[in-house]
Amino acid sequence: MLIRNVAVLVVPEQGECRVDEAQDIHIQDDRITAITPTTTSSPTDEEVIDGTGLVAVPGLVNSHTHSPMVMMRGAAEDLSIEDWFNQRIWPMEVNLTPERVRVGARLACAEMLLAGVTTFVDHYFHADQIAAAAIESGIRADLAPTYFSSAGADGINAAVDTTRELSRLHPRITASLGPHATYTVTDDDLKRTADIARAEGFRIHLHAAETDDQTQASLDNHGVTPVQVLERTGVLDAGALIAHGCGIRPGDLPILERYADRTAVASCPKVYLKLAMGEVTPIKGLRSAGVPVGVGTDGAAVHNTLDVWEAIRMVALTQKQREHDAEWMTLSDTLRLATRGSAAAPGLTDQIGVVEPGRQADIALVDLSAPHNQPVHDPRAALVYSVRASDVVTVLVAGKVVVRDRQLTTMDLAEVLADAKSLAHTLVDLSKGGAIQHYAP
Amino acid sequence: MLIRNVAVLVVPEQGECRVDEAQDIHIQDDRITAITPTTTSSPTDEEVIDGTGLVAVPGLVNSHTHSPMVMMRGAAEDLSIEDWFNQRIWPMEVNLTPERVRVGARLACAEMLLAGVTTFVDHYFHADQIAAAAIESGIRADLAPTYFSSAGADGINAAVDTTRELSRLHPRITASLGPHATYTVTDDDLKRTADIARAEGFRIHLHAAETDDQTQASLDNHGVTPVQVLERTGVLDAGALIAHGCGIRPGDLPILERYADRTAVASCPKVYLKLAMGEVTPIKGLRSAGVPVGVGTDGAAVHNTLDVWEAIRMVALTQKQREHDAEWMTLSDTLRLATRGSAAAPGLTDQIGVVEPGRQADIALVDLSAPHNQPVHDPRAALVYSVRASDVVTVLVAGKVVVRDRQLTTMDLAEVLADAKSLAHTLVDLSKGGAIQHYAP
Repeated sequence: MLIRNVAVLVVPEQGECRVDEAQDIHIQDDRITAITPTTTSSPTDEEVIDGTGLVAVPGLVNSHTHSPMVMMRGAAEDLSIEDWFNQRIWPMEVNLTPERVRVGARLACAEMLLAGVTTFVDHYFHADQIAAAAIESGIRADLAPTYFSSAGADGINAAVDTTRELSRLHPRITASLGPHATYTVTDDDLKRTADIARAEGFRIHLHAAETDDQTQASLDNHGVTPVQVLERTGVLDAGALIAHGCGIRPGDLPILERYADRTAVASCPKVYLKLAMGEVTPIKGLRSAGVPVGVGTDGAAVHNTLDVWEAIRMVALTQKQREHDAEWMTLSDTLRLATRGSAAAPGLTDQIGVVEPGRQADIALVDLSAPHNQPVHDPRAALVYSVRASDVVTVLVAGKVVVRDRQLTTMDLAEVLADAKSLAHTLVDLSKGGAIQHYAP
Repeated sequence: MLIRNVAVLVVPEQGECRVDEAQDIHIQDDRITAITPTTTSSPTDEEVIDGTGLVAVPGLVNSHTHSPMVMMRGAAEDLSIEDWFNQRIWPMEVNLTPERVRVGARLACAEMLLAGVTTFVDHYFHADQIAAAAIESGIRADLAPTYFSSAGADGINAAVDTTRELSRLHPRITASLGPHATYTVTDDDLKRTADIARAEGFRIHLHAAETDDQTQASLDNHGVTPVQVLERTGVLDAGALIAHGCGIRPGDLPILERYADRTAVASCPKVYLKLAMGEVTPIKGLRSAGVPVGVGTDGAAVHNTLDVWEAIRMVALTQKQREHDAEWMTLSDTLRLATRGSAAAPGLTDQIGVVEPGRQADIALVDLSAPHNQPVHDPRAALVYSVRASDVVTVLVAGKVVVRDRQLTTMDLAEVLADAKSLAHTLVDLSKGGAIQHYAP
């Protein structure tokens, strides 16, 4: 396959990103094999996608989400983080069933693919259902089956077994271990998780130091920060994706630096503002420590979208604000975070994240011709500050076209939407009482 | 004309907003005449727009912008506020010509109308050209011809004369006086402006207390805050739209409260984060003082879009963050700010801002059926936190359809875009040297 005459976003490991005009991207099976300047004599015996007027960007990676929570979109608004968990989300999650999770995951995959998201890094229940939706839709996913210590040994074992099963399921599916958080999983269970991770080669995806309040509570109650908990339980040594990390303290950075080759942090700043958490991920410090940071949306029950473009923009804006420095988190910094950084989140650094020969052919073709992007003095600025998810025209995952002319090729969108609508009320039903967990970090 | 079987966003002066399903909006000439529940016997001798599955929202108001600056979109990135002004924007604005301003304004009007923005409140040079573009496009505009004291008496008189001419030009055009800012216009010139405003019934649209640094500089150099300058020069008494106001101090609030019936503040928070200004507009205090606050985008040379949906979302998020209170700036607060608040910015409180009988028929029909909005547990949450500008399907201004099925009816978009592209390089040319002003507040 050939994507012909397309502009290509080039993201070097350091220095300025650039957009190379008039390139041909050659694809064999699931991989990019070559990128060459467009010539009039390009071969025509391949399937050709005309990239004229489009920019090829690495397929976006949603580096932390709970995809089926799209089913609760808009059902938990204007609440403190405590009430969000204890009055709405954890009581609502009593209603989870395999079918409801699958219907939600299908909707989430549709939303993400249409927006140019080609990989999502998920943390949720009934992860086998999410895997089925991902496989059907054509998207790539890293799935961590969620567990709390309150589930007991059997519950934890079942989640770990799901990780094992998912890891063997499909070339586009990888699996991680999914302890929920340092405040809902005991140190003993984290140690056991780390042992399994090291023995079987899994990564661990979990929430830690989500807010500074959590860090302070950990210090007050246990005398250690959440990051120190991750170190002493072996989670960092095994390789971890830390969701949020807004409560990472300066003193945690030297610890994280020691595990920088296998650790990453996912930042989802729309959520931090919406829940008035008071902090965002300290990306500048993490970068100094060499720790990769990716961009995510968290679940749509708080982020309201799975729009990674929106999340990328929020990272750039909130990081400039946090550091009181408009010259920091530049266009190139931001695009590198959103591509190479996000690829590191699920440990796929060598597979995805850049449009280069040898990488998976996960590519989004973006049309910058609409009025809201014009004129384009700098396409990098358009990608960070003016593009909309609706500007994504064509999407490939593993060399397969999954969105063509803004339409899904893999699923019947009308059916996906109808299924979600018909079940939506069941997810937000609070009449049964109870909750799957209580938030008291 | 009749918009049939549409859901209507209802924004009361206080309390919860709601969405009423299955309504007919009756329109006569430029006004809404009635809103009635849809019945099967609705008359069919009118022009009918089918609103089935759509939400009718008050046409959005961009309460502070510099529309022709779309021509510099993406040309001044990752800069401090000082460098943004002194190294880029004010040197670039040496290149302004009537033609270039008109071409930029046409592009801006296209971008805004397609996104459901039916009114923009502008502050720029060659405002007669902006008026021409607005009239052609079908949008509503309040235009303030910009002036600095450095333009001298002749320059100021010319700008004031333009305000007078524009105020008589067209039913959809209103005009305000446009002194640039308290730090670029002398107190004497502000006094003269206020005298003209009072005598001739104009409002004054200007930048003031944009950052807390500006406020501190004003205190250090003159012993008064910018708001105190506005009071002692008579600007507040005449009626003012204050752009930004991030540097409004608590002590300024009692002053503003005295003029709350004729003063408004426009908040454009994406810009405050991007320029790392350290503060956002203190909306909570302004609300306590009874001062209306609207939502704007500022110019696209810093905001990168004229997307008011994006601006609305940023207001909600940054206000929750500012107050460390996720329960503040609720969905209803936010929607009221974006509608009634923004309508007050150009002094059009009784004309626009809500979908009610007697108001101008400025309406955007929004489609929430795409995956990123589904399922819709709360349409208000969708409008604030998940909707995209691309979800706007149909737009009316003063009872006339200006966007139908996502297409402009009033202008040839291809021509608008081609003109902008062909002139874009001329706006960012720094080879001539010079600058129209120097930023040193």
